[in-house]
Amino acid sequence: MKVHPEEQNVFEVCLVVPKSKAKKEDATCDCVEVLENAFLKVGFIVERIDGVTDEFMKLAAPLKLLGKAAARLEMKKRTHIGMDLLFGLDEVDAFVRQPDGSLFSWCERFRCYHHLIYGIVNENQSAVTLKCDEEEFQWKVGESLVRILESKKIVKQIFPLHDEIRRKKLLGNWALNWWDITGQPIDEIYSYFGAKIALYFAFLGMYTRWMLFPAALGLILHLVEFGSMRLLALPIFFISIILWAIMFSQFWRRKNSALIARWQINYTFGGDPAYRLSGVDSSLQIPVELIEDQEMDKRKEKEAFQRIEWFGRLRRFRNDAIVILSIICLQLPFELAYAHCYEVIQSDVIKFGLTVLYLFAIQYFTRLGAKMSMKLINCENYESNEKRADSLVYKIFGLYFMQSYIGIFYHALLHRNFATLRQVLIQRLLISEVLENLLENSLPYIKYSYRKYKVRRNKRREKGSSQGKIQFTSRAEKEYLKPSYSASIGVELEDGLFDDCLELALQFGMIMMFACAFPLAFAFAALNNITEIRTDALKLLAMYKRPFPRAATTIGAWLNIFQFLIVMSICTNCALLVWLYDQEGKWKIEPGLAAILVMEHVLLLLKFCFSRLVPEEPAWVKANRVKKATQAQDICSKQLLRTISGGEKALNYVKKIE
Amino acid sequence: MKVHPEEQNVFEVCLVVPKSKAKKEDATCDCVEVLENAFLKVGFIVERIDGVTDEFMKLAAPLKLLGKAAARLEMKKRTHIGMDLLFGLDEVDAFVRQPDGSLFSWCERFRCYHHLIYGIVNENQSAVTLKCDEEEFQWKVGESLVRILESKKIVKQIFPLHDEIRRKKLLGNWALNWWDITGQPIDEIYSYFGAKIALYFAFLGMYTRWMLFPAALGLILHLVEFGSMRLLALPIFFISIILWAIMFSQFWRRKNSALIARWQINYTFGGDPAYRLSGVDSSLQIPVELIEDQEMDKRKEKEAFQRIEWFGRLRRFRNDAIVILSIICLQLPFELAYAHCYEVIQSDVIKFGLTVLYLFAIQYFTRLGAKMSMKLINCENYESNEKRADSLVYKIFGLYFMQSYIGIFYHALLHRNFATLRQVLIQRLLISEVLENLLENSLPYIKYSYRKYKVRRNKRREKGSSQGKIQFTSRAEKEYLKPSYSASIGVELEDGLFDDCLELALQFGMIMMFACAFPLAFAFAALNNITEIRTDALKLLAMYKRPFPRAATTIGAWLNIFQFLIVMSICTNCALLVWLYDQEGKWKIEPGLAAILVMEHVLLLLKFCFSRLVPEEPAWVKANRVKKATQAQDICSKQLLRTISGGEKALNYVKKIE
Repeated sequence: MKVHPEEQNVFEVCLVVPKSKAKKEDATCDCVEVLENAFLKVGFIVERIDGVTDEFMKLAAPLKLLGKAAARLEMKKRTHIGMDLLFGLDEVDAFVRQPDGSLFSWCERFRCYHHLIYGIVNENQSAVTLKCDEEEFQWKVGESLVRILESKKIVKQIFPLHDEIRRKKLLGNWALNWWDITGQPIDEIYSYFGAKIALYFAFLGMYTRWMLFPAALGLILHLVEFGSMRLLALPIFFISIILWAIMFSQFWRRKNSALIARWQINYTFGGDPAYRLSGVDSSLQIPVELIEDQEMDKRKEKEAFQRIEWFGRLRRFRNDAIVILSIICLQLPFELAYAHCYEVIQSDVIKFGLTVLYLFAIQYFTRLGAKMSMKLINCENYESNEKRADSLVYKIFGLYFMQSYIGIFYHALLHRNFATLRQVLIQRLLISEVLENLLENSLPYIKYSYRKYKVRRNKRREKGSSQGKIQFTSRAEKEYLKPSYSASIGVELEDGLFDDCLELALQFGMIMMFACAFPLAFAFAALNNITEIRTDALKLLAMYKRPFPRAATTIGAWLNIFQFLIVMSICTNCALLVWLYDQEGKWKIEPGLAAILVMEHVLLLLKFCFSRLVPEEPAWVKANRVKKATQAQDICSKQLLRTISGGEKALNYVKKIE
Repeated sequence: MKVHPEEQNVFEVCLVVPKSKAKKEDATCDCVEVLENAFLKVGFIVERIDGVTDEFMKLAAPLKLLGKAAARLEMKKRTHIGMDLLFGLDEVDAFVRQPDGSLFSWCERFRCYHHLIYGIVNENQSAVTLKCDEEEFQWKVGESLVRILESKKIVKQIFPLHDEIRRKKLLGNWALNWWDITGQPIDEIYSYFGAKIALYFAFLGMYTRWMLFPAALGLILHLVEFGSMRLLALPIFFISIILWAIMFSQFWRRKNSALIARWQINYTFGGDPAYRLSGVDSSLQIPVELIEDQEMDKRKEKEAFQRIEWFGRLRRFRNDAIVILSIICLQLPFELAYAHCYEVIQSDVIKFGLTVLYLFAIQYFTRLGAKMSMKLINCENYESNEKRADSLVYKIFGLYFMQSYIGIFYHALLHRNFATLRQVLIQRLLISEVLENLLENSLPYIKYSYRKYKVRRNKRREKGSSQGKIQFTSRAEKEYLKPSYSASIGVELEDGLFDDCLELALQFGMIMMFACAFPLAFAFAALNNITEIRTDALKLLAMYKRPFPRAATTIGAWLNIFQFLIVMSICTNCALLVWLYDQEGKWKIEPGLAAILVMEHVLLLLKFCFSRLVPEEPAWVKANRVKKATQAQDICSKQLLRTISGGEKALNYVKKIE
């Protein structure tokens, strides 16, 4: 068995504090000293490292400390009897271990760290006076030390540290493993980065692997001369890629549930939160008072619930209407105006200038839209942060959808200008994706270099001399200078994964919706995705700070967006086919139109029925789950009835709960 | 509080045995006597009634006996802590009572009766010789007495008895309560007939209530002269009825879940059987050996599961293909031929003759189709009888769909013959429904009368004299002579509810799919449904034997069929609109067609998104469920961890289970 970080006491979290200029003057009051002592008292292993400008406090938690935190957090973990129970330190053996052999997943570990770090409060009778350089302030009774230090800007940042051994290993067998085209060590990714990122890479890998089929088909269609069969080849291509997409989205669901089962994450289908009680995010959208108020009579309670439910729904509906209307009324005319100008203007120079202007404008508009969406979402009440993030994703995607496709629709459907359409598609697929990939990977490096340069300059200016190069010797400081993995639209609900998923979804929409106009697109996309896997891996491992782990059971809103794009692509491709045949004038529109309409309806029907044919959950996962659920229920049943029959005390207990 | 049948010892089940001609000759061997003694030994209250030709053995079970049977059946029941636990007789107070105050629902009671009646086995050391009239046979050790008597045709029938007091009450406040147009005492129906029938009537009631809106709209459209607005009125009518139908199907789901919550039935959404462990039908489609074989290694197990899953799916797919192909290749030409002949032939006499011939032919074809479907279903393996019944419903509905609508499609879409279309619709909606209603109610009465007549004739012939009228004095005998509530397509999986639901679904399809051609249809349908509620109630209470109770949580396949019909009606109505406007030649087809196509796609999108906007489960039901589930889990958690930490014994227990 391998050695796990939790048994090895690897430093996993780092705090950044300023270097105290006057050292060891009064250690009892210096806040950094106080902080270190508090950490040591809690049970952390602390290492302080002197950096160039700041000091870095690395923390590691022994397994026992993590267990204590988990028990205090009332964390639920999978047991050997298949049920999720509250974690207890004394019965460690009852709980199932992760695939890599550790007891806690990285996500759970980080939750414990967070709880422990922010859980340090002043337990003395009176406030403690803390000092930092010249400033003095009070640490009041019951206040969290780290929070107060954060508000005073003394703790500048808390971030998860890379684990050098595992990072190197992943670099070798994942990021730089170019030979295995789509293979990835998903389990290792999961245990190093958490479920959300691992699911993204699993999805990306499967997507790329499946993409090889339509890529081959597209290549054939492009290279082989069909002659008179040409008119038949395109609809066949269209039908097969739609079937491909439908099957892909369903089989991804199956793979997803198999992964979740392997990682022992409590996962229920249909997103029913009643059984999703294991996580943090099971708080309902209903105010707590309502749930706890036992005295209220049933009818009143029901009415109150209904009122809250419908008001919440109305508010969400209103917000969605605002977003949709503002996209249609503000963004659509703007995009159409640009597309029209591009169509009309002859001079290439003016075209170029226009495009540059346009690119700046949309940057600004997107940021504005993201801000607006965040404001709207904050006045809705969602059941969990996950749902809130999903809502944000839908809203932002609406924006990007308009931005990316409306111009193409304009060329394709209104002007029937297939030459411009193909040109735009090639431009978007080839140039912009290559550029984006380059930018994605070089920008963090440039940022990192610039920060290093700035630190060095400041240091030199301080010292007043320019002799010798300042070296960043500690790994923690280097990581601190690296940019964090954050989303372009704001950091509140999403991290950098948002941009990666968005890129994927936009690409999918581009190649699917205009498949009939440009079958070769699939080959470009496949090539792009093969490089995407490795560059994204490299980015995560080498360019950024280690991202905060996020719990997840699916890729969330993105799968629904993929589904929506499939439905859209059925419609748009049918429209393209009609235009195509109409333009070439070889078919009469009458029977051709009818045939295409019938085909469209059959495909739509198939899309919506396929999930009934092939269930989301493979039989073996389900059988395991059912077996375990039955076992757990039966044990509980005997236990509970024993309690209930145990007499007065138990009955009172039950009544209290009721 | 009311008095419940289980405390009153109402006779609820009846066995029919032959009158022994030579009475009290040798009571120890006479099988009827043996049977009675066995019942008394079990704890039943037995009443023997002498009928005209047969003897009736009425059984009543005291509450204690039912509880014993329930415990032996390992029945799971809802407890006050919100979890479903195995029933235990000693802790009756821990379990929630039904809305009518009784401990067991009628469905659970009947299961207990069934278990008790068939659970009488020969517990002696040797076989017992039984005698009936002249025949003698052996009751072997461990054999079920009732089964052997059934195979010897001595127990002719076992059927549930009506409870006269409650039946009379229901007659008064339900079947004959014409004033309250759509109101029904659903809770009483549930406790008298079981969940399946109660859900049907709840659905019928809500459907009729909602139907009043499109009925009014249709009337307005028919009566008011719109003038030049006529062309706009029809599409508006179309959109509003589609929205109405979409909302109806979703709000019915909400009502359904509220009902199920009130009746304390364990219900999970998405039909996930992992949590539907309370009923009989939780056996998976996976063979038991696989689940129990713990020695097999994980990978092999997974492969075996996958093989079984995919083979099962393929077999189902093959069967569905057979059904669809035989409908298209055999039924479609036949129906089209009839429709074509009807269109072509001028003479009314020949038309009438043709229709009579056709009606006989389809009777035969339907029965053939039902037989074939049953054979196909028997070679598929389903998770539960409920799913098997659903599969049958889909297959049979395919048949009826072709039969009912293809002729109308022929008139409407191919010939654009709106006059014939309207004529056919009126004919189907008015005449056939009135006739069917009459037939439905008179046929069982005629059957009942004929049976009574036959019994009397036989009796007279036996006695050799014709003096005096033979009276059926006992209620049990009268009920025995009533026909049973069985489906026209066979009795294996469905009962009479199938025909009632089928009628409803066909009516819904008829009025929705051709709404634009004949808006008045909704008014006819509303009228028909108002009478349907009362006549169906009357039928169940007065015309038939009390039906066997069936457990259910939804109306099953029928809701999906309704959904399918909504989708179909969006498409057909759009086609109708195109034909209509094209025919009248007032619109140009170009922009009109585009507008209608856009409308169709928007409506289809709405149909598939609406279930996301309004969830199936009301918030108050969900909140209750979540609250209870959390409570139960927490109790279990503490209990189980205590057990696990309880030392060796408990650990072994856990290991044994693992």
